[in-house]
Amino acid sequence: MSTRQRSGATSSDVAALAGVSQSAVSRAFTPGSSLAEEKRLRIVEAAKKLNYVPNSIARSLTTRRSNIVAVILGNTANPFYLQVLEAFILRLQGQGRQVLTFTVPNGGDSDEAILRVLRYQVDGVILTSAQLSTRMVSLCHDRGIPVVLFNRYIPGSDASGVRCANAEGGRLIAEAFLAAGARTFAMIHGDPKGTTSQDRARGFVDKLAEAGIARSAITSLEGHSVYDGAFNAVSRHYRDGKAKLPDAIFGINDIMAMGAIDALGQRFGLKVPDDVMIGGFDDIAEGRRFPYRLTTVRQPIDTMVEKALDILHLDEPLRPIQPGIDVQVPGRLIWRQSIPAPRSRTPDGAA
Amino acid sequence: MSTRQRSGATSSDVAALAGVSQSAVSRAFTPGSSLAEEKRLRIVEAAKKLNYVPNSIARSLTTRRSNIVAVILGNTANPFYLQVLEAFILRLQGQGRQVLTFTVPNGGDSDEAILRVLRYQVDGVILTSAQLSTRMVSLCHDRGIPVVLFNRYIPGSDASGVRCANAEGGRLIAEAFLAAGARTFAMIHGDPKGTTSQDRARGFVDKLAEAGIARSAITSLEGHSVYDGAFNAVSRHYRDGKAKLPDAIFGINDIMAMGAIDALGQRFGLKVPDDVMIGGFDDIAEGRRFPYRLTTVRQPIDTMVEKALDILHLDEPLRPIQPGIDVQVPGRLIWRQSIPAPRSRTPDGAA
Repeated sequence: MSTRQRSGATSSDVAALAGVSQSAVSRAFTPGSSLAEEKRLRIVEAAKKLNYVPNSIARSLTTRRSNIVAVILGNTANPFYLQVLEAFILRLQGQGRQVLTFTVPNGGDSDEAILRVLRYQVDGVILTSAQLSTRMVSLCHDRGIPVVLFNRYIPGSDASGVRCANAEGGRLIAEAFLAAGARTFAMIHGDPKGTTSQDRARGFVDKLAEAGIARSAITSLEGHSVYDGAFNAVSRHYRDGKAKLPDAIFGINDIMAMGAIDALGQRFGLKVPDDVMIGGFDDIAEGRRFPYRLTTVRQPIDTMVEKALDILHLDEPLRPIQPGIDVQVPGRLIWRQSIPAPRSRTPDGAA
Repeated sequence: MSTRQRSGATSSDVAALAGVSQSAVSRAFTPGSSLAEEKRLRIVEAAKKLNYVPNSIARSLTTRRSNIVAVILGNTANPFYLQVLEAFILRLQGQGRQVLTFTVPNGGDSDEAILRVLRYQVDGVILTSAQLSTRMVSLCHDRGIPVVLFNRYIPGSDASGVRCANAEGGRLIAEAFLAAGARTFAMIHGDPKGTTSQDRARGFVDKLAEAGIARSAITSLEGHSVYDGAFNAVSRHYRDGKAKLPDAIFGINDIMAMGAIDALGQRFGLKVPDDVMIGGFDDIAEGRRFPYRLTTVRQPIDTMVEKALDILHLDEPLRPIQPGIDVQVPGRLIWRQSIPAPRSRTPDGAA
């Protein structure tokens, strides 16, 4: 009953016009297949002339490769994860693969998204944020679908993943504050269940402890990983002057550090870093701009994306993913204005 | 040779456990199918127990519906389009559909992306930005794949789409400037080939012409639709004091208006709106924040997304999309601080 026409030129039409075999046509449109470049170009030309479009879905039933990779996004209110999504899309598009994008509400779990992913015979799943149950990890494993955790790990599970060395990054910010002369501190936490926030906080607290600053002397605020959360937490906590402002506040990601800077400016007329120093984490584009000029820890997105795709081994024969891989990529301290740089450093340079 | 197992419980296992027919199981996992809610829940329960996951790809060969919708993103450096992507993902996920995301480099055309989309038998294509050739539109049409343009149209083509009433929005900003007493003007253009930028500029210029201000008296800067582009254009054009600063600058989208504000502050120590007024367009979250407080035209994303999906008629029997639909949704002026509101208005309120 459908009036939709999917028909058109077939691969044998293209093969005839290009003077190649049908299998060469198929290889020309399969990522990672070997084919002489000259031949490939001839086939692509012929396909263009005939308006031929290979049917990837029908082929996926034969090759068991759909060339689709699912990316599950948690906190879309944090621009960092949108920058990560874009990096995955660009990299995978360049390989002739496509990205199926899912979002999970902040604080929600990814089980529902994973169940949906499984319907589409994707070649792999990248989980950039949000929670995932160990039950779902083993369901994917049983079906042979590789799952890679991005900036997350699941304590007690052997799910593989890539993350920034978050605890070490937290230490870098503590060191920067100490070098700039700060003696009293607050930190704004993100998702309390998220390992990223926990690890950054732990590194920060550990480094301060080494400098003789007790955990109990560090104020903890909850920013829920979003701008408004941090803005409101700072506005509320310091509003009546009872709570004394610290020398330095660590926003556990840049978007919260930005919320803190704006709250200090708008609510209390305070300037960063003259009145309070602020440190961030991620190095998102927004935090580099004039009103913020965040001193922060840069996450090397491209390296992390590359390593995550290595784990998925999309070009290799199908096999289950190796469990227990935990790649940690070091972050880098970027000095800008929100923490004054010691005299030997230049702004925007590396530590 | 594959060690990957896609097997598991079948739909007849689920049917047996739930005590329903196999066709009921199939309907339970097909968006838009009719099925008593009680029965549907029983089936979902049984499927969960058996770890059954319907194979959407195999089914799509029968139903000719993949339940996948492609979203092609142009300018990902503009947060507006990421907010649009998120709105589409949330809406489509809620319908049991998935989003295949493509990006096209800024200024590039979408033909390559469309050719890829066609391989996946998607149920529809949403093109949120970027150029598309009329040849590609007819290729999609011939294959019965509905394409909806979002905030774009192709002059001389009958491709259907949804857009903000961009020219009228440009008029609203001109009116706001005039009401605030501005008499000299500049505007920062986006993508010169983009109809969105052209239409906003046209509305702005037309309204000023009605107030007796000649087109030749309005300075035109090129911001390439991105923050850095606008920042650099303003920094360069006004740097040596030869070009006189106008009373008001219209950034044709918010992200460029933000770049202009930061350039004025950082390069020249100028304050908005005291020294120069700035108007934007889009109402992105970033522009609402303390350092910017943009007076802007809000694009009603949710309404626009809804109307775009109406055009795709995903719940109806397959048929080619109706050509020539051009839905224009009016924008709304939001007063904040970058253009001083006339006394009868309250900040953050509608015009």
